[in-house]
Amino acid sequence: MAQKNPSFILHSQGKVLFEDRPIPELKSPYDVLVEPQWTGICGSDVHYWVHGRIGHFIVDAPMVLGHESAGTVSSIGASVTSLKVGDRVAMEPGVPCRRCVRCKDGKYNLCPDMAFAATPPYDGTLARYYALPEDYCYKLPEGMSMEEGALIEPTAVAVHICKQGGVKPGDSLVVFGAGPVGLLCAAVGRAFGAKKVVSVDVNEERLKFAKGYAATDVWRSKAGETVEEGAKRLVEECGLGSGADVIIDASGAEPCIQMSVHACRIGGTYVQGGMGKPDIQWPIMAMCTKELNVKGSFRYGSGDYQLAVDLVASGKLSVKELITGKVKFEDAEEAFKDVKAGKGIKILIEGPK
Amino acid sequence: MAQKNPSFILHSQGKVLFEDRPIPELKSPYDVLVEPQWTGICGSDVHYWVHGRIGHFIVDAPMVLGHESAGTVSSIGASVTSLKVGDRVAMEPGVPCRRCVRCKDGKYNLCPDMAFAATPPYDGTLARYYALPEDYCYKLPEGMSMEEGALIEPTAVAVHICKQGGVKPGDSLVVFGAGPVGLLCAAVGRAFGAKKVVSVDVNEERLKFAKGYAATDVWRSKAGETVEEGAKRLVEECGLGSGADVIIDASGAEPCIQMSVHACRIGGTYVQGGMGKPDIQWPIMAMCTKELNVKGSFRYGSGDYQLAVDLVASGKLSVKELITGKVKFEDAEEAFKDVKAGKGIKILIEGPK
Amino acid sequence: MAQKNPSFILHSQGKVLFEDRPIPELKSPYDVLVEPQWTGICGSDVHYWVHGRIGHFIVDAPMVLGHESAGTVSSIGASVTSLKVGDRVAMEPGVPCRRCVRCKDGKYNLCPDMAFAATPPYDGTLARYYALPEDYCYKLPEGMSMEEGALIEPTAVAVHICKQGGVKPGDSLVVFGAGPVGLLCAAVGRAFGAKKVVSVDVNEERLKFAKGYAATDVWRSKAGETVEEGAKRLVEECGLGSGADVIIDASGAEPCIQMSVHACRIGGTYVQGGMGKPDIQWPIMAMCTKELNVKGSFRYGSGDYQLAVDLVASGKLSVKELITGKVKFEDAEEAFKDVKAGKGIKILIEGPK
Amino acid sequence: MAQKNPSFILHSQGKVLFEDRPIPELKSPYDVLVEPQWTGICGSDVHYWVHGRIGHFIVDAPMVLGHESAGTVSSIGASVTSLKVGDRVAMEPGVPCRRCVRCKDGKYNLCPDMAFAATPPYDGTLARYYALPEDYCYKLPEGMSMEEGALIEPTAVAVHICKQGGVKPGDSLVVFGAGPVGLLCAAVGRAFGAKKVVSVDVNEERLKFAKGYAATDVWRSKAGETVEEGAKRLVEECGLGSGADVIIDASGAEPCIQMSVHACRIGGTYVQGGMGKPDIQWPIMAMCTKELNVKGSFRYGSGDYQLAVDLVASGKLSVKELITGKVKFEDAEEAFKDVKAGKGIKILIEGPK
Repeated sequence: MAQKNPSFILHSQGKVLFEDRPIPELKSPYDVLVEPQWTGICGSDVHYWVHGRIGHFIVDAPMVLGHESAGTVSSIGASVTSLKVGDRVAMEPGVPCRRCVRCKDGKYNLCPDMAFAATPPYDGTLARYYALPEDYCYKLPEGMSMEEGALIEPTAVAVHICKQGGVKPGDSLVVFGAGPVGLLCAAVGRAFGAKKVVSVDVNEERLKFAKGYAATDVWRSKAGETVEEGAKRLVEECGLGSGADVIIDASGAEPCIQMSVHACRIGGTYVQGGMGKPDIQWPIMAMCTKELNVKGSFRYGSGDYQLAVDLVASGKLSVKELITGKVKFEDAEEAFKDVKAGKGIKILIEGPK
Repeated sequence: MAQKNPSFILHSQGKVLFEDRPIPELKSPYDVLVEPQWTGICGSDVHYWVHGRIGHFIVDAPMVLGHESAGTVSSIGASVTSLKVGDRVAMEPGVPCRRCVRCKDGKYNLCPDMAFAATPPYDGTLARYYALPEDYCYKLPEGMSMEEGALIEPTAVAVHICKQGGVKPGDSLVVFGAGPVGLLCAAVGRAFGAKKVVSVDVNEERLKFAKGYAATDVWRSKAGETVEEGAKRLVEECGLGSGADVIIDASGAEPCIQMSVHACRIGGTYVQGGMGKPDIQWPIMAMCTKELNVKGSFRYGSGDYQLAVDLVASGKLSVKELITGKVKFEDAEEAFKDVKAGKGIKILIEGPK
Repeated sequence: MAQKNPSFILHSQGKVLFEDRPIPELKSPYDVLVEPQWTGICGSDVHYWVHGRIGHFIVDAPMVLGHESAGTVSSIGASVTSLKVGDRVAMEPGVPCRRCVRCKDGKYNLCPDMAFAATPPYDGTLARYYALPEDYCYKLPEGMSMEEGALIEPTAVAVHICKQGGVKPGDSLVVFGAGPVGLLCAAVGRAFGAKKVVSVDVNEERLKFAKGYAATDVWRSKAGETVEEGAKRLVEECGLGSGADVIIDASGAEPCIQMSVHACRIGGTYVQGGMGKPDIQWPIMAMCTKELNVKGSFRYGSGDYQLAVDLVASGKLSVKELITGKVKFEDAEEAFKDVKAGKGIKILIEGPK
Repeated sequence: MAQKNPSFILHSQGKVLFEDRPIPELKSPYDVLVEPQWTGICGSDVHYWVHGRIGHFIVDAPMVLGHESAGTVSSIGASVTSLKVGDRVAMEPGVPCRRCVRCKDGKYNLCPDMAFAATPPYDGTLARYYALPEDYCYKLPEGMSMEEGALIEPTAVAVHICKQGGVKPGDSLVVFGAGPVGLLCAAVGRAFGAKKVVSVDVNEERLKFAKGYAATDVWRSKAGETVEEGAKRLVEECGLGSGADVIIDASGAEPCIQMSVHACRIGGTYVQGGMGKPDIQWPIMAMCTKELNVKGSFRYGSGDYQLAVDLVASGKLSVKELITGKVKFEDAEEAFKDVKAGKGIKILIEGPK
């Protein structure tokens, strides 16, 4: 490609194409320009491609896709002090306003004016160049590959979920769903010190992977079982005593969510980490009388990206196993098709040459 | 009555009667015997009377009713140091095991072995005598009447709900439901420093009372409005900016619960304080992407009863207005009928002469 | 004065003068230009004037003094949406970098790159014009005077101290020192729900004021008493049971600090809110075995200024009584002399005409 | 020994002897009788032996020594359900009143009526029999030796200190002192996820051990250096950036404590974990302007003993290396002499045959 800034663009629902885009300008002297080397595909990327929208975020103008990236710094703004050209960095894809109450209160992931890569109207990272502030770049330590760097994004999602869950040493943790985020939640949960981590899924292959990867136990639900029955069996078969300390849903499936409430111990914590139906049947009286702490989890906030880098760098958490495919930039659409078809765990797209 | 320990007993579903019972023994040298002077009637008392059960708590043997009481100490155990005969006390009606993980962790209200007055199989306080440990008695300060003392129980319920909600100075608070608990939540919320407290109900009379009592604003839903529309209108009409910091449901009504999730600000807190249907439709994706903190609230725990006494004693919260009726012990059944019929706010029953 | 931007300047240690300075430029489209109407004098202003430095902050170039101000918006940047010309605002005088770990973590008061008014090398507010970002301006509600607006700054200091102390409803609080910050800590403590607030000072006049202002109790130490004896007497005479839940030092005096550790209950909290000697004798074993929570408090952070405005607006806290003198801009040096001499509680300087 | 309950007794300052004592009675139906198999010696045991007192705890009657024990259940009370005769357990040596405000608030280690083994007037565990409640016994998992079980006590001390410090994944931690508690703090800190753990000591041998055991870095102070200089060098040489997130003092040495305050990052946490002089020079202004969180740590509380067992059982923390000597019951006094002489790390005394 002889283009200046070749980009992989979602033109409209179902239609992607490659285009040369202007090189992004540095809007602030604290910004840097990065050349993404590897970019993972996320369910949300595929969802925009297939549906043209997620909730009230609607793709009504062409948008560059991709937001799980690591790359090389290619130029820096005048005030940048922490980075130099050539540095290898994981790129946090959402930049908040820094001025609202949420930002000042330490919850920048809840900033209503967040500019998030590949969320309309903001362009993503599947291009030769991407501009972002230096403080949203995280240097990759020696020994960490660019591919691992691209996996920092979903790891940060899992870090944030586990922080929301307050997972701490000695806890028992159940994670519903053994896709990329569920697997990473199990791994982060162990790195946070959980003594028992149960992965739950309906797919036997995924459970096998989960057991070899991070789970201490795995569990499958049975057809014909009520959610109360399933919860009781889960607790008994996995030795969870009076229930799990923390339960994370990374499946978005209604029966999993309901089972979670029943399988959580009195005073335990439940985190909704997976996206699914907007409204579900919810056992609110069980939640109330057990005084569960129920939390949402949205993207990642202060310290999450750095901690994700640290966990991978220290070896407490390994992400290599999750990479099940790597394709050239030109084959990006094929990769999207594979993800849509549920092939593999995490597929990476190379940056344009 | 020349009986030793006349007691008002729920014999079986729908059937109450008066009986002479043995005077309770002090099981521990730290116990005291109290003569209840006034006892409020709670929705749960009426529920046992009408339905013979609440959830898995089933009245399968005759049980003394009543648990919202204040009385006079009539004898004390050998090791009691904080009380003497004649002391006037509010009586916390639930005593935990003191040995389980929840008890030692500071959450005794979640003790699975709690012995709670008028919850099967434990007798309640509508009798001449009731025995409980000295540390579950709270001396009434001078100037606080026994009638006010009986109101400490629902006040402690509201204190616990507001603590679960983390209500703090400057917060905006919405309380759905303007029955006794909802009104007390509004009052405790103000005492905790909330700058705006909105009471919501469908009953115009109750709203009028709420406005005069503790709410800074009141609001009614309209027929034909969706919960999203209602939430939007609530936020706009009550000047809640980007949503309420804390929302408490003290109604148990499904549309109120749903509206709460939509009316809560990003990162805000929702507390389920009212009992209703076991399962409801729940806007889980709104909860998730807004990272709401959702909490149950169950009875009251460490420090709640004392704080309820302190709030009333200091005048930060007034409970007198809530007492809309007082009856003799002999007329207890009439009082239960009135509560069932929704008459008044709080009716008190005098102890037996 | 026909000058463009008349300013009250600390030229060097002990030497102040009036000078015309260039009107500050708006560095960001989110900045506004404000004309301060009233400015309170703080001990730190006087300290710079007398000593030319505070710790490692050294006045090595002329600097405009003043940082406790309220004023009128006189122009706004292109991106400003929350303010318009003519708005009356309290001005938060420290603006952080918004990009460091501390800022993103919700602790902007700890930003090492904070630009703080009248702290070298940053100019203060005793001038006709002062530029700051819109989100560091807080609109004064109707009914709040500009003079009260100038008092928001020390109120925010007290809010931050009381938050550090975790003062909550029902607590007992002791405040050492009954100067402006100590008095405001007592008042904020009551607004936060403390049921007992003891003001301690050596000056009988100040204690009398404190009692009429916000303290429920006042207490004086005696000559010849050890700190342990003093602590014991304080606890007994003020009915603090097994010690105070929270103790705030707003005096900076070594014996007060020592007495605080001994007068605090097991598991209680101590906050250092006053500036004094860099090193003191400290009862560390008492602190350790009682598991005290010991905190520093530095300026004010997220939400503190807004809460200070809300507390004053709602009437939960009154600041008018603290204003004991008001002078014209031209008489600024006289006002500094009065503060140095310990006259009055809070003196305000009017903005230049 | 044909004695019923041979016991190792501190008769008075400096004088120990063996005596046959009556077998302890079970005071409550929830109590069990345990035969301690191994007991570690703690600095406090030696301190009582040498000085006859610690602070206001004075040995004024003969007292059985020892409180770091694991043993075998030899009889159980009528209400005991969680243990049976023959169970191998770690024995938590302090039992609180369960009724005071501190106990109910989840802080039982702060109970003023705590009955603690080998703290006057309560007998310790160096005897054939020791009685305690079932919920203060922790079953040793299969594969954990009794010797390891005896090490649970100092491990629980370190767990409590690290919890007080809020050590969490990604933190940098400095531990002053590389004796048993300091070493265990380093190990628990790593198990809690600290990415950098620096052990500081003056003894080169201990540092060598620390490095092989749990520290990622070790550091020694230099003679002639001020505490500020030392702190600066510590931060630089150990790559602590702007200072350590958490610093624990397990030395009790004044210069270490002072250096800690200077080496801690802005907003960081300092925990006093070691016992030393009651009063020291303390850099309170540095603490204040950096808003450090300063904490004491006293024994262990809710969940600490169980977590200590879990950490050892899971292999996240190893205690075997710390056992540098084992002696027969008859040689207990020799062991005390060795500890006093600073020989080895942890010496265990076998239970009487």
